[in-house]
Amino acid sequence: MTLEKLYSQIQEKKSFLCVGLDVDLEKIPAQLLQEEDPIFAFSKAIIDATHDLCVAYKPNTAFFEAYGVKGWMALEKTINYLNENYPDHFTIADAKRGDIGNTSTRYAKAFYEDLNFDSVTIAPYMGKDSVEPFLAFEDKFAILLALTSNQGAFDFQTKTVDGKPLYQEVLKTASQYENSDRLMYVVGATKAEYLADIRKIVPKSFLLVPGVGAQGGSLEEVVKYGKNDQIGLLVNSSRGIIYASNGSDFAEAARAKALDLQQQMADLI
Amino acid sequence: MTLEKLYSQIQEKKSFLCVGLDVDLEKIPAQLLQEEDPIFAFSKAIIDATHDLCVAYKPNTAFFEAYGVKGWMALEKTINYLNENYPDHFTIADAKRGDIGNTSTRYAKAFYEDLNFDSVTIAPYMGKDSVEPFLAFEDKFAILLALTSNQGAFDFQTKTVDGKPLYQEVLKTASQYENSDRLMYVVGATKAEYLADIRKIVPKSFLLVPGVGAQGGSLEEVVKYGKNDQIGLLVNSSRGIIYASNGSDFAEAARAKALDLQQQMADLI
Repeated sequence: MTLEKLYSQIQEKKSFLCVGLDVDLEKIPAQLLQEEDPIFAFSKAIIDATHDLCVAYKPNTAFFEAYGVKGWMALEKTINYLNENYPDHFTIADAKRGDIGNTSTRYAKAFYEDLNFDSVTIAPYMGKDSVEPFLAFEDKFAILLALTSNQGAFDFQTKTVDGKPLYQEVLKTASQYENSDRLMYVVGATKAEYLADIRKIVPKSFLLVPGVGAQGGSLEEVVKYGKNDQIGLLVNSSRGIIYASNGSDFAEAARAKALDLQQQMADLI
Repeated sequence: MTLEKLYSQIQEKKSFLCVGLDVDLEKIPAQLLQEEDPIFAFSKAIIDATHDLCVAYKPNTAFFEAYGVKGWMALEKTINYLNENYPDHFTIADAKRGDIGNTSTRYAKAFYEDLNFDSVTIAPYMGKDSVEPFLAFEDKFAILLALTSNQGAFDFQTKTVDGKPLYQEVLKTASQYENSDRLMYVVGATKAEYLADIRKIVPKSFLLVPGVGAQGGSLEEVVKYGKNDQIGLLVNSSRGIIYASNGSDFAEAARAKALDLQQQMADLI
């Protein structure tokens, strides 16, 4: 996937919505539990119901791994289904990986080549040689945690380093890594007021923005402070969309929630 | 696994060696590639050859995940083999996970309950609500990245925050989390001179120390600066042991390397 293609999808659909696939067997409609692979069945139904309203899908790998080998197979089926049926969508493995060089290369190959995701989320703590292996693949992107949407973000990310918050040091340092044009950054919608400062450091990069909806972030503020001239935003909603209903109308209810967000986005861009 | 049991293993074996299972199909003896599950066959042979010389095993999950469903099955077989045959060994899933609360709980359950590892490595960047879910399980331990052995550690971990390096802020903050007696910390052997300061902040905690051997860290210095009155160290070697030979004598060669480290350890404690 190229950035140009992602941007043209955004323009065409008037949407920068990313649907997060956090598939929890305790929350999906009971009827699906009789399927051979309930995790995939649920993911497929959500994808089919929302694909024209969003530009990206983000399976959170934790939810798949939690089911061991079966979960991993469901993840493979989900990404294969996306790549075969909706190849124009940007796909994100929300895995938050990061390890020393040769191990990061392993992870990168697993997600980019074997599973064929367009991108993977990664953690910055181990620095350059843990991040750069994820930037060595053409048309693949690493999405680095910068300022996350949770309360724990204030433990370290906002602490002052060299006169500025750590998350800004992360943005500044990472934007100098090799192939940093393949970097995107996670910035939580719950901290939208920080986006203006973030845009000064990474004006051109795409930002993956979780926290709209269930976590209380404001879409309007995210756009106000975070938009650049190519939009530059992927706003994620997971629970707010996929668990809109746990009845037999779950797919229609998910579509309605996605449509609501897409229409708000169309008004804002 | 309790800390008392881990300490008694260390005393009994005069060893605080952890063997890292970074299984790479390109590096294992060619003869094993004909096995039905070469990854497990290799892990099993290494375990059988070294179990009396070490107190812990640490599969790096990246190496297993790199092989998709097959790799995940090999990881399950490996941890099951350990738990059935060598239940006194401390087991570490080197996964470097970390996500917001409910997702961290998923990961914790996957590693502690489904796979039945004693511990899992985690990244600190997302703070308290990403770490505490890993501390909510009795006799299970989370091993937090503090100061890693790679060059990239200098990007952020050693930057000054409130007058001290970030890794010390991580240690100080994390040691106040709920159930922090279930925390251990990763400190690279390549930075052994930092261990004296680290011991002032976390005098009682176990430290998982990678970087002896292939990465050049000194065992003697690690013990000098890092040992506490219950040893408090798990020194890991991966490549230096498991790839000592890629011929048919690989298991014996691995044992010889492990024995060499164990004997050095016996002299130092």
